[in-house]
Amino acid sequence: MGRWEPNARGRLERAALELYSEHGFEQTTVTEIAKRAGLTERTFFRHYADKREVLFGNATSLEELLVGALNGAPESAAPIDAVAVALDAAAAVFEDRREHSQKRQKVIVANAELRERELIKLASLSAALADALRGRGVADPAASLAAEAGIAVFKIAFERWGGETNQRPIAQLMRESLDELKAVTAGK
Amino acid sequence: MGRWEPNARGRLERAALELYSEHGFEQTTVTEIAKRAGLTERTFFRHYADKREVLFGNATSLEELLVGALNGAPESAAPIDAVAVALDAAAAVFEDRREHSQKRQKVIVANAELRERELIKLASLSAALADALRGRGVADPAASLAAEAGIAVFKIAFERWGGETNQRPIAQLMRESLDELKAVTAGK
Repeated sequence: MGRWEPNARGRLERAALELYSEHGFEQTTVTEIAKRAGLTERTFFRHYADKREVLFGNATSLEELLVGALNGAPESAAPIDAVAVALDAAAAVFEDRREHSQKRQKVIVANAELRERELIKLASLSAALADALRGRGVADPAASLAAEAGIAVFKIAFERWGGETNQRPIAQLMRESLDELKAVTAGK
Repeated sequence: MGRWEPNARGRLERAALELYSEHGFEQTTVTEIAKRAGLTERTFFRHYADKREVLFGNATSLEELLVGALNGAPESAAPIDAVAVALDAAAAVFEDRREHSQKRQKVIVANAELRERELIKLASLSAALADALRGRGVADPAASLAAEAGIAVFKIAFERWGGETNQRPIAQLMRESLDELKAVTAGK
């Protein structure tokens, strides 16, 4: 087996998610993931620190996507509307990977350690959005609160997306959740 | 030293917080905490699983306080107003322990592992508030979103409380943060 493997990262990610879905996260070993992907353990560890990180390897690109979209929102946009632009951009990516994203969500919900890791990822996304808002001249605490509101919407829309049988698009669920948050904070 | 020690839990908590503030969380050992409290390590482990849990020993009573206050809100109260009642009740307790609470906050902010543990605590408080709202007949996603909004306000008010030099009451900062969240979500 050669040193260079085309799309090793993607193959490992797919193999891991298959195995986690079939046998559970705890029961799966790195050896099994590498074997299913047709790669070596050595290649696995060149890409991921451990089997948990396979599920969080896209966190950085998601953060860049959210921040990039937020920064691209019109200068005149209210903070919450700039956050909504970021959520829309993320929704498009999740929709393109619907099956993968929903499988991943199920694996995470089933495991306490993964749920905690996911919370840390969401907090880090919230901090990145707040920073980006500050960069647009939004003062605190408005910047932090708009970011926290956006991440709350993201989290709850995602949970609904995985749980729904009628499978509406995630973008629609995010917009609905944001509208619902607006209604709730308005005291309705 | 007798088997029964008056207020051992409180003495261990105070001793731990002093040592974490003086030398840092990482540098402090259970042996040192027990010694400072005038107790044995055995007594320490009768009350806490490890040195981290000393900082989170009150999470259950905080949850009970929040849920109890929320349940005590008038039946006619909108979800977000019931959440505000819960936050007010928590604020009163934090204000009574201002020095302790602010010291604790500083120790947590300084350590990545403790920040993660705090996130998990906040997520658990949010889940408890959402459950309590569902118990009052609030449907989802409104229940989850009102709870997430409340915890975002709690988190940000708390961060401001520790950071401010003019030391306004936490209840005031929570109310201000909630008003700011309302303004932000209204697109201001």
